Amino acid sequence: MKIYDISGFPNPARIRIVLAEKGLDAQIEFVKVDLFAAEHKQDAFLAINPTGTVPVLELDDGTFISECVAITEYLDNLDGNPTLTGKTPKQKAVIHMMQKRADDQLIDAIGIYFHHATPGLGARLEAYKSPEWAHRKEWGERYLEKFVRGMQYFDSVLKSNAHVAGNDFSMADITVYAALMHAGAAGVVIPDDCTALLAWQAKMSERPSVKNRSGQVMALPAA
Amino acid sequence: MKIYDISGFPNPARIRIVLAEKGLDAQIEFVKVDLFAAEHKQDAFLAINPTGTVPVLELDDGTFISECVAITEYLDNLDGNPTLTGKTPKQKAVIHMMQKRADDQLIDAIGIYFHHATPGLGARLEAYKSPEWAHRKEWGERYLEKFVRGMQYFDSVLKSNAHVAGNDFSMADITVYAALMHAGAAGVVIPDDCTALLAWQAKMSERPSVKNRSGQVMALPAA
Ligand SMILES: N[C@@H](CCC(=O)N[C@@H](CS)C(=O)NCC(=O)O)C(=O)O
Ligand SMILES: N[C@@H](CCC(=O)N[C@@H](CS)C(=O)NCC(=O)O)C(=O)O
Repeated sequence: MKIYDISGFPNPARIRIVLAEKGLDAQIEFVKVDLFAAEHKQDAFLAINPTGTVPVLELDDGTFISECVAITEYLDNLDGNPTLTGKTPKQKAVIHMMQKRADDQLIDAIGIYFHHATPGLGARLEAYKSPEWAHRKEWGERYLEKFVRGMQYFDSVLKSNAHVAGNDFSMADITVYAALMHAGAAGVVIPDDCTALLAWQAKMSERPSVKNRSGQVMALPAA
Repeated sequence: MKIYDISGFPNPARIRIVLAEKGLDAQIEFVKVDLFAAEHKQDAFLAINPTGTVPVLELDDGTFISECVAITEYLDNLDGNPTLTGKTPKQKAVIHMMQKRADDQLIDAIGIYFHHATPGLGARLEAYKSPEWAHRKEWGERYLEKFVRGMQYFDSVLKSNAHVAGNDFSMADITVYAALMHAGAAGVVIPDDCTALLAWQAKMSERPSVKNRSGQVMALPAA
């Protein structure tokens, strides 16, 4: 199997953590996509993922799977022992519910903020981020507000649960962790009063699947 | 089990179609949530779904599941024969990939358009839709553009596949169908040149699970 991605980025990190959790690292060949050069917005890449984002998984039969939820479903079910996406109908449901909330309120929201209200990945990529829209910065800032409300929501969840989707670690924890990683790189801090979220983040960063890559931070171009 | 929703709305329709596909209708008690009166934004409803949207499934043990993907995972796996969310790792992956694209590019996009660039569900609800933001209409309109590009993308997919996620009907078809239903109610038409999408929509509307409710259209307040 191949993964098209770039090391140190938050959505790629989700899948690298999944691979480590499932012990699948050694089966993967990584192919680097240069986001700073907007390689993911050119025809060759759009042919494998029309959405123009990383990561993408290529199966041995040539099928391309994009979207972290989809890639995670694949990798987690390969061994018939899904530990990240749930075994019972109820576990699957709770995990997918929290996963979608983490996408909408956190990781997709901070991405919109980052690409529209900050210098993002620099000049080359900005051409693909609605530069013509006069209110793009304000639009991005609204998503930062959404992200901050999202952190408060997940803090409230973690006040009564050990993990995002209940007692057990799941795909939803990985998404929240990666979103906070993106926030950190974008200079957005977790509010001090989100004590449960902060404590959970500290615990997550000690997981072997996370720890080995927790030194990775997004290397942004100089402003 | 209980479903909190309102008949004739697109996200509720997704789950009503799932219930019909799985033969589960008779096991459900429906509880109406009055969206026009903003009942879903009041504390009683936010306690069961902090995101403030319908549908919500209540399990017999009192657990509340929101988000259509999560509800569908639950209902589809109850009988151990998942026909809508995939059986093999690859099927699950392709379905979840197309499902996420359908959420982002179609059903969530048309919802943002509808609530911000049109009168939406009327004055009572508008208070919850960023009325203070001067550029909310322009923001909504950008999501209409995204929705139109999304229709073109799904048209291209359906030019070479019988269904959205390949040969077989799946949860992703239901999402695309419901998004087009929302578009229709909002006065957005499918472009004439999206011939594959139009043909697929006509075929979908003949499915028994859809047909019995295809007469349902969103009853919007008079402008
Ligand atoms: N929903 C997608 C999000 C992927 C995504 O946004 N990836 C980022 C990297 S962290 C990306 O490719 N950004 C490039 C861009 O938006 O131009 C997923 O789950 O994979
Ligand atoms: N992602 C949600 C979307 C749910 C949604 O937006 N539902 C609409 C009804 S079709 C709603 O509750 N809208 C009320 C509002 O946005 O105020 C899901 O999959 O259930």
